[in-house]
Parts: sequence; structure tokens; C-alpha cells
Amino acid sequence: MTVKRILIIAPHPDDETLGLGGTIAKFSSQGHEVSILVVSGHLPPLYKQDDYDITVSEAKKAFKILGVSNSHFLEIPATLIGDIPVNELNNKINHVVSDIRPHMVLCPYPDRHIDHRLIFDSAMVATRPVGVGKKIEIVAAYETLSETHWNAPHIEPNFTPNWVIDITNHIEKKLDALRCYKSQVSEFPGPRSIEAAEALAKFRGTQAGFGFGEGLHIIRKLS
Amino acid sequence: MTVKRILIIAPHPDDETLGLGGTIAKFSSQGHEVSILVVSGHLPPLYKQDDYDITVSEAKKAFKILGVSNSHFLEIPATLIGDIPVNELNNKINHVVSDIRPHMVLCPYPDRHIDHRLIFDSAMVATRPVGVGKKIEIVAAYETLSETHWNAPHIEPNFTPNWVIDITNHIEKKLDALRCYKSQVSEFPGPRSIEAAEALAKFRGTQAGFGFGEGLHIIRKLS
Amino acid sequence: MTVKRILIIAPHPDDETLGLGGTIAKFSSQGHEVSILVVSGHLPPLYKQDDYDITVSEAKKAFKILGVSNSHFLEIPATLIGDIPVNELNNKINHVVSDIRPHMVLCPYPDRHIDHRLIFDSAMVATRPVGVGKKIEIVAAYETLSETHWNAPHIEPNFTPNWVIDITNHIEKKLDALRCYKSQVSEFPGPRSIEAAEALAKFRGTQAGFGFGEGLHIIRKLS
Amino acid sequence: MTVKRILIIAPHPDDETLGLGGTIAKFSSQGHEVSILVVSGHLPPLYKQDDYDITVSEAKKAFKILGVSNSHFLEIPATLIGDIPVNELNNKINHVVSDIRPHMVLCPYPDRHIDHRLIFDSAMVATRPVGVGKKIEIVAAYETLSETHWNAPHIEPNFTPNWVIDITNHIEKKLDALRCYKSQVSEFPGPRSIEAAEALAKFRGTQAGFGFGEGLHIIRKLS
Amino acid sequence: MTVKRILIIAPHPDDETLGLGGTIAKFSSQGHEVSILVVSGHLPPLYKQDDYDITVSEAKKAFKILGVSNSHFLEIPATLIGDIPVNELNNKINHVVSDIRPHMVLCPYPDRHIDHRLIFDSAMVATRPVGVGKKIEIVAAYETLSETHWNAPHIEPNFTPNWVIDITNHIEKKLDALRCYKSQVSEFPGPRSIEAAEALAKFRGTQAGFGFGEGLHIIRKLS
Amino acid sequence: MTVKRILIIAPHPDDETLGLGGTIAKFSSQGHEVSILVVSGHLPPLYKQDDYDITVSEAKKAFKILGVSNSHFLEIPATLIGDIPVNELNNKINHVVSDIRPHMVLCPYPDRHIDHRLIFDSAMVATRPVGVGKKIEIVAAYETLSETHWNAPHIEPNFTPNWVIDITNHIEKKLDALRCYKSQVSEFPGPRSIEAAEALAKFRGTQAGFGFGEGLHIIRKLS
Repeated sequence: MTVKRILIIAPHPDDETLGLGGTIAKFSSQGHEVSILVVSGHLPPLYKQDDYDITVSEAKKAFKILGVSNSHFLEIPATLIGDIPVNELNNKINHVVSDIRPHMVLCPYPDRHIDHRLIFDSAMVATRPVGVGKKIEIVAAYETLSETHWNAPHIEPNFTPNWVIDITNHIEKKLDALRCYKSQVSEFPGPRSIEAAEALAKFRGTQAGFGFGEGLHIIRKLS
Repeated sequence: MTVKRILIIAPHPDDETLGLGGTIAKFSSQGHEVSILVVSGHLPPLYKQDDYDITVSEAKKAFKILGVSNSHFLEIPATLIGDIPVNELNNKINHVVSDIRPHMVLCPYPDRHIDHRLIFDSAMVATRPVGVGKKIEIVAAYETLSETHWNAPHIEPNFTPNWVIDITNHIEKKLDALRCYKSQVSEFPGPRSIEAAEALAKFRGTQAGFGFGEGLHIIRKLS
Repeated sequence: MTVKRILIIAPHPDDETLGLGGTIAKFSSQGHEVSILVVSGHLPPLYKQDDYDITVSEAKKAFKILGVSNSHFLEIPATLIGDIPVNELNNKINHVVSDIRPHMVLCPYPDRHIDHRLIFDSAMVATRPVGVGKKIEIVAAYETLSETHWNAPHIEPNFTPNWVIDITNHIEKKLDALRCYKSQVSEFPGPRSIEAAEALAKFRGTQAGFGFGEGLHIIRKLS
Repeated sequence: MTVKRILIIAPHPDDETLGLGGTIAKFSSQGHEVSILVVSGHLPPLYKQDDYDITVSEAKKAFKILGVSNSHFLEIPATLIGDIPVNELNNKINHVVSDIRPHMVLCPYPDRHIDHRLIFDSAMVATRPVGVGKKIEIVAAYETLSETHWNAPHIEPNFTPNWVIDITNHIEKKLDALRCYKSQVSEFPGPRSIEAAEALAKFRGTQAGFGFGEGLHIIRKLS
Repeated sequence: MTVKRILIIAPHPDDETLGLGGTIAKFSSQGHEVSILVVSGHLPPLYKQDDYDITVSEAKKAFKILGVSNSHFLEIPATLIGDIPVNELNNKINHVVSDIRPHMVLCPYPDRHIDHRLIFDSAMVATRPVGVGKKIEIVAAYETLSETHWNAPHIEPNFTPNWVIDITNHIEKKLDALRCYKSQVSEFPGPRSIEAAEALAKFRGTQAGFGFGEGLHIIRKLS
Repeated sequence: MTVKRILIIAPHPDDETLGLGGTIAKFSSQGHEVSILVVSGHLPPLYKQDDYDITVSEAKKAFKILGVSNSHFLEIPATLIGDIPVNELNNKINHVVSDIRPHMVLCPYPDRHIDHRLIFDSAMVATRPVGVGKKIEIVAAYETLSETHWNAPHIEPNFTPNWVIDITNHIEKKLDALRCYKSQVSEFPGPRSIEAAEALAKFRGTQAGFGFGEGLHIIRKLS
């Protein structure tokens, strides 16, 4: 088996688990190297440093459960990503891509949260099929509960998966990892509750022929 | 309160419950009149008459649970709807609309099943804002597990709801009604399993701010 | 009858009348409370303070004709909205939504005018189905003559209404209110002339089964 | 000046005037040759022969007002176009295109009326850029009041013009020609009333910088 | 290496080579089993039997060059596919899928040619993620010169690849196979000329980071 | 013949030749006046002044080959366009449009490069059908190799031409002009290689009925 390097770009700690917790657990259980790049977080001035530190420590517990190989935190204050010049944000993400030389890059779908849009844009630049980008076999965008489904229907892009990954054997790890994010997860019927995450996985899975699944929108596959 | 007449057009018995079981239970519990028009069914020559009779008797049990006021069965053989001249199918559906004079018409989303597409087309003709159609306050399309989500992404239209109905207090009736369709419902992880239907309702609901919901695509609202 | 609180977000004074003058008159004649939030205006440094003051006094006359209950002016200089940090603009609009606790929010369609896009984005954040947003029954976007129809066809989103409100009995008030905006309205065949506004209303109305109408794009309806 | 041959394909008599009456008058006043191909009509068995004969005689009066050079009536019964094998319908339309060798072909937008869709499909085949099709400089689709605007928003294609023709000097002829269609035109606020047609022309025109206009969707321009 | 079974559905002989000649050569050179299902052809009554026989013998030469493992010819007359009841066409294609149990199904993009649309529809039914369909790892649609690029822009779906296969080492075989289709290929600048096919491959390839490529639209990937 | 003034807006030197080199050569050979507005360039602080000077001198050679009448360089640093207030960028482009009073404006398609998007937005404002904009007969967007085809499929707008200009007699000039841009053009299989540009032209041309072509997306045509 060829070991693949998989880079998952998360706007904030928890997005990677919400969108791809089962997929991370699956890939790592198969021996692949999964790296997480967390771009932003609940940092001053809009949030307290403590808020951020809590989410990072929650993230590290989640990453351990899921079998993440490496993680990088760019520590850009949430909702202030637009204050950084575009070329600087691009450079930061480019550098990580150049270091990791991934076979697969999974990024957030551009949605209600402006950070997701700006990071999506930079990810699109960093994964262009030039230089190190020519070695990326697949670029895809994942959905994030409570943001992706709040895009305005038929005005903004609406998520429809063209790739579903069977996570039937990994749903428990996904939910366990999600439970680590005590500061982020809400009680049912909250849009980011454990029950909502499980329901989405069951919906995506059953419509694709298995029990639980995670859906992605493939942007570029090169073979 | 004004009693509203609501017409739900189902291609085959069970589509109304899959798509709108909770909504039917909700509307009927509020005193509104819900009529179901079942256009097609598992009839000869492609199916045995017995197959059809079973689904009709299942439907009648389900309708009772949900509180359906009236039901009409047009008895057109499934997957052979295209054999009927378009103007005849239009006439059949027009007649029902003219008889019921509904305030609301809910029809299937045009999807993988060709019957759903042809019935959608006829429903669009029958609900034009002319004649009896001028009194229709809302026309919307509902999703059907295992057909709507099999439309080809980004080639065929993909369902994104712009209307979610809170069925938190009616989810049990929806699932009970669905259980009546023993001949149609499959075991988990089947795409039409009880678990899949519950998961979809939980996903739609939590993303809209409540526990369980049913999603629709509004086509025309007149106020 | 339940009195509804309706919040209309206008980028600049006159957008609310161009898009929804008849609807405002209708809702207020029915006893509902209509609040207008005017976000921006022709303010220094790009415009003279006098220019702004004139449009505000025109707006107040128009609001009186239409029966507006409350109005709020955020006084952000037009075309400079992008200079405000996104989170501040979001906060300003959030506060108004929290104060009013509306049952309905009607905002501009994202179009040629960059202010309309930025305000649309903030309105989408403020009306998410969480907290006070869970009580909003409908979120919809209205069209603005001379901006909405200048979106690039098939590149940017193009307005097609899925909700038409019958304003046949209120068209005169709409046009009277529009005439108050002497500084904004141009002579026929200007794109914002009285004649153009009347023609659009007649076109939207007749295609929906009545004399005059105003079209909206429903983004989220919760029932 | 080069005289251009312009072919307008009308599903039924009156569609050409509703969609392009001003354009026909303009082109013919400039000395171009405008040919009308009327594909279908209110013929037996669904309609009486008399119904058809009336619309044809109305059409001939309208054509005279507009300055039409030639007209062809294929006499296929309305709403039964789908009964003709696709290759036969294609052949019929191909033959007319081959005979006329047009510089411009204007066809109906595929909309609520199934005849419009089938004729659109055949027109797309007949105008492919091969053989006689290589000489066609522009292929475009026009809108038809009361059918084009009844396409389901965001499920079926929705008309947005990318070409507007100034008919300010020809609006009277358009409305006069439309008045010839006594059997087809309804009183205001009917969706095909004279007032509705005038309102649409004023709306299209003012948004494009002139008084009255007709909108088209350009499909292929070759230069 | 796991040998994969790849099923390519071609509406008519030559579509498989135009769309996927390089991909077929690549997969077969890697040891995979490539099966071609040719659904239709130039058969009586619209064509002479001889016409058909020629294309079949051309196809067999092309298949040999490309290394095709198996081929099936359903022999349905071209442009008359719509005369077969939908359920029969579905059954025919279903049977082939059931026999081959493919890991990958590549079908035509629904485009200008009505046969391509009907076959696309049937392929979508045959590859649903149920039964044998659950073992299909990827379903994708390929482009066909002179048909796919004649879809009406912004009315019908327009092809944009999300998967590009590097055929740099197989472009010569693709062009050689295409040259076998003497009865179908035209001289430059014909839309199906060897030069056009090579240009498309070079365009798709260079935009994806290599010399020559073939583009596909992924419909469903299951992992 | 009426001499037309054609304004081509290029984000950076070479975009005009990549997208429209043949068209420029054709229009200028026909006696029309072609003006190029180059908005941005490889300027300090992100690039060295020398880098910029080289591209300008390359551009001037290319313009001479193509027969460009006038050129304007706004000299805004590349990828920093977003640092300029929107109203200033709009003013700069407005001024050029007002000076030239063009009959035709051709601008970049909004794509992967953020400069292209911002310039597209400003071009849309500058060409609105008001004032000098009422005299613009056509506004269209051209494609740029290696940026336009890197838009995310089915999330961002994807280029499909509705206008193809026959450049068969001008392809050599286009490629010669492109060769002037030594600092920008890469060797085959680079995405901006001479071979890639020629392949795209051959693909666009052959699908439109001629040898070589350049594709555009028409945004607004006024007649």
C-alpha cells in the first residue's frame, strides 16, 4: 500500500471533526498520514485568549482519538481573516502545502461563515495544478453543520456531495472526537449537537448505499 | 382559524409519507383538510395487481394515522406514465385540482424517478396562476429519500430546501405511518429505512432551529 | 389577527420603496408593524451632508405615506460599507434584529451595488435560525430597479421571484411614496423612473394572476 | 447596407408578436427580410379547425402590421408535438432553415409549455454550426408572457436577457399587432393582456437604457 | 494491483474514442478490464444496414488499438431510442451492468444529441447505489466533441470537468483509434476532426498540469 | 463602414493577448480602433520594478503586432488591487470608459485570480447602461488560460462561451504576440504555453464551425 499524505484545512478547531471526523479516523486507521491545518480560532481582540486555548486543547484530544498525524495552527483571529492582505493568507497556506506535499487536500465549502469563504479562496490558490499542486490527486470541499446549510438557497452555492466516504466503522470515533469539543457542541436540537452530526452522517450514508457517510464536493481530481 | 385545503400529489403510495408525513400530521392536527392524490402505482403489466393492492392498503393505514381527509388514486401503471399523452395526464391532475380548489399544492421534486419528473411537469401546469390556480397560496416540491438525492449533482437540479416545517411533535406519527408501508420500507441501512427517514428529519430540523423538520422547495407563493 | 413585526433592510433611502413600497402599504394597512432599517446613505466624504439630509427627509415623507411604524438610520457612508470591519457591520444589524424580534425580514438581493451585497451578507448572518433568529418566520430578498437587473447574466445570481405579493390596491401609495424621492427618481425612460417602477409591478403582478405585484426571492421560511 | 434574413420560430400564432413584435417591426423597417415559422396551432383533435383558422387569419393581419416578409405554417396540433418522432420534427425545421439560409434565428425559450420545449430542442439541432448553420450569425431565445415566467424558479431554467433590443419607435406596432390576436389576448390583468405586454417592454427597456425593449437570451453568436 | 472492471457506455460507435480513447488505452495498459457498451448505431430505418456495419467494423479496429477487453452492441437505431419504452432501455443497460459488475462506469454527458440524454438517464438508473450499484466506485460523464459543446449555454447543463486523466503517454493511440472511424471523422476544421480531438486533449491536459488529458464530470464517487 | 471603438480591459499585461489576441488583430485589420486598458502589473512591493518594466515592454511589442491603437497602464500593484477603495478603482476605470466612449467593452471573466474578480466588478459598474454606458453596444467577458479554468467547478461560475469569434486568419499574429511575453509564457506543457493557447483556439474554433476561434461570454448586448 502507498501511504498517502492528506491535508485537511479547518477554518476553526472542530470544523475538521464536524466535516470529516470519520474520514480522518478511516484514513489514519488505513495507515495514511493525516495533517490538519487550523487557520483561525477564537482569539483576541474579539475573543479571550482563554477561549482559544480551550478550543486548542479540545482539538488536541479530538485529533488523538481520530489518529491525526500532524497539526498546524496559524492562529489568525476568527472573523478577522479579511484584515490580512490576501497575498499573506495565500502565502501562509501555500507554505503548509509546500511543506506537506499532500496527495489530497480537503478544505471547507465556501458558506455562511466569511472565514470559510476566505480560506476556501486561499485553498483554491494553493492547490492550483502547478508546482507542488501537480502532485495533488484530489481537491475537495466538505460540509460544516450550521454554516454550509445556511447559504442562501439558489443565490449562493448550495452543497450537494459528489463523493461519499463510508464511515460506518468510524462513526463512533467521529462522535467521540466531537464530544471533546465541549465548548463548541450544543445540546440537541442545536445545529452542532452530537445528534445532528450523527443524523447527517446517517443521511449521507444511507443515500449512498451504506450506514454512515461523510459527503464532499470534488473540485479537482487528477489521475 | 381559516381551514385550508391542502393537496399533496404523490407519484406512488409512500412518497407522501416519506416526504411529508410529519407535515400532513401537523396540518390535520390543526384542523386543515389534507387530500392526497396518488397518481401511479405498482400495477400491471410491469407489476402484479396484488403488489398494487398491498401498497394501497398500506397507504390507507398510513393515511389514517396521519389524519388524511381524502385520497384519490389515479391508478396509472408505474414507470409507464410517459405512455399517456401529456394532455391526458395534465387533464387528470387538472380535474383533481379543480375539484379540491386547494390553498396549497405540494408535489414531488423532479428527480431520478421518471414518474416524479412527469408528475412534476403536470403539477406545474395544473397550478399555473390562472383560473382555479389563482387561489393557490403556495406551490412547493418535497424531497423523496432514495430518488431526490440520486439526481446527478450539478447536471440535474439538486434539492436545497427554502422552507422547513417543524415536525418535532409529529415525528412519531410520521415514522408510524412509514412503518405501515411494509412492502416498501427496507431495513437499515436501506435508503428508505425508518432510520434514514428519521435522520433526514433530524438533519433538516436541526439546521432550521428545531428538532425534526421536513424540507420543501417553494416554487410559487402568492400573498 | 396576530400583529406581525416586519423588518425591511434598505441599503439606502428609496430602496425599500422601489422594492417593497406596495408591500409596506399593504402590511401596515392590515395592522402589522413595519420597521425600516436604512443602513447607508449619501454621506461625506464622498457626498455632501446636505445630499444625505435631503434623502432622509424624502424618506420620512415616503414612510408616512406607506404607514411605516419605525425607522432606523445607521448612517454608514454609501459605497464605503466595505471599510467597516465585517464583524462591526454584523453587530449593528444584529442589534436591530434583536431589538425588533421580527417575524419577517426582507433584505436587498445581492446585486450590482456593492453595498447591497455587503448588507445582504450581514442580513444572512443576522437572520440565521439561532437565538432570536429562530422566531423569524420568513427571510426573503427583494429586487431593486437599476441594480438587481444589472447583475451579469449567468455569472452572478439573477433574480427570479418565488413569492409575489398582490399590491393592486396599494400601487398608488407605492408610486406616491416614490415621488417623494425627488432627488433619486429620474424622468422616464430612466431606470428608476415612476413609469419603470409601475411597469415592473404590472409585469410581476400579471404573471402571478393579479394587477400589480412585488416579487421576492424566499431564502428561508420556517413553519 | 447588407440585407439580413431573419428567421423567427413561433410555437403558436401570437408567440412571435408577444416575444418579438417590436423587433420584427424594427428589422423590417430597416429593410431586412423577416420570416416567421409557425410550428403548431390549435388544431384537431384537441381543438376545432375553426379555432385554428381564426388564429391564422389573426396572425396574417399581425404579420402585415409588423412587415413580415414570409410565413410558414407547419400545422402540427398544439400539445401533441411530442407525438411526432423527434427526427421528423427536426427534419421539418431543418428544411425551413435550409431554404431560408438565415443570418439570425430567434426561437422560443424552453418554458412551461411543452411545445416550446420540444421546438426549442429542434431549433437547437437545426442551428448547429454545421452546413447551413455555419452561416447563422446569431441564435437567441425570446421570452413569452405567461409561459416563460411560469418555469419553476431554480429548478427549471429561468429567463434573464443578455440582449435587449430598443423598440421605442416600434412599441405601437407591437401592441397593434397584438390586438389582432383577439382570440388569444385577454383583458387586463390577464397575463397576455396588452397592458402586460407593454409593461414588460417598458421594464426591459428602462433597465437597458431606453424606453421600450424586447429581451433575448443569446445562445450562439458567431463573428 | 487490483484489476478493476471499467464499463464505458457509448451512445454510438466512436463516442467512446472521442471522449475516452486515451483513458481506455491507459487503463488497459495498466491491466484493467475495459468493457464498451455501444447502445445505438446508424441502423435502419433511418440509415442503411451497411452504414451500421461499417461503423461496427471501424469500432472493432479502434477497440483493438485501445486494448478493449469486451464490447457489447445493443443495436438500437440511432435517434429512435425514444421509441423504446423507458423501462426496456433501463432493463437492457441494467443487465449489462449486472453482468459486468463494474468498479467504474463512464457514460456520456447529456447533450445536444437526444440519444446521449436518454442513455445518460438510463445509466443514472442503472448505477444507483443499490444492489450491484453499491460496488461501483465511481460514476462519471465524459464529453463528446460536436455534441457536448452544442448544449445551449446557461439553459442546458454545460460541461466543466472536475476530473482530468493524464493521457500524455496515450494520445497517439487515441488519435490512431479515432483514425479508424473513417466514416465518422471529418477533415479539419470539422468539429470531429483529428485536429479538434488533439486540441481538446491538449487544452484539458495543460490546464490540469500535464500535456494531454481527458476531462470528466464526476457524478458519484464512493470510497 | 463605421469605425468602432473597442476597449479591452486587461488585468495584467498578456491577459489581453491570451484571451483576445486574434480578435484584436482582426478588429484592427478591419479598421476599428482597439484600446487596451492594463489595470495592474508586477509592481513593488510584491515584485521588482524591473519585473514590471519588462512586461510593459513585452506588451508594447505585442500590441504593435496586433495593431492596438491606444494603451493605458493604471499601474496598480498586482494582487493588491483590493487595497484600493472600491470607489477609487471604479473611478479610474470609469474615467477611461468616459474618455474612450467605446462601442464594445471586453473584460476578464471573474476567475481564480482575485485581480480578475475585482476588475470584473469595476468593469460591470463602468459599463452600466447609463450615461456613456448607453452607447456601449456589447459588453462581454473573455477567458484567460490558467486562471479561468481553475475556478472551482459548480461552486464558482464556469466559463462557457456564447460568442465565438473566427480568428482563423489571425491565429499566427496571436501566437506571435504571445511569444513577445517571454517573461510570462512557459514551455509546453505549461498552462500558458504557446501550444496551450493554440489548442484552446482550435478547440473553440472547431466547435463553432471554423478553424481557430476565441470565446466570450456576452453580458449585455444592446441593439
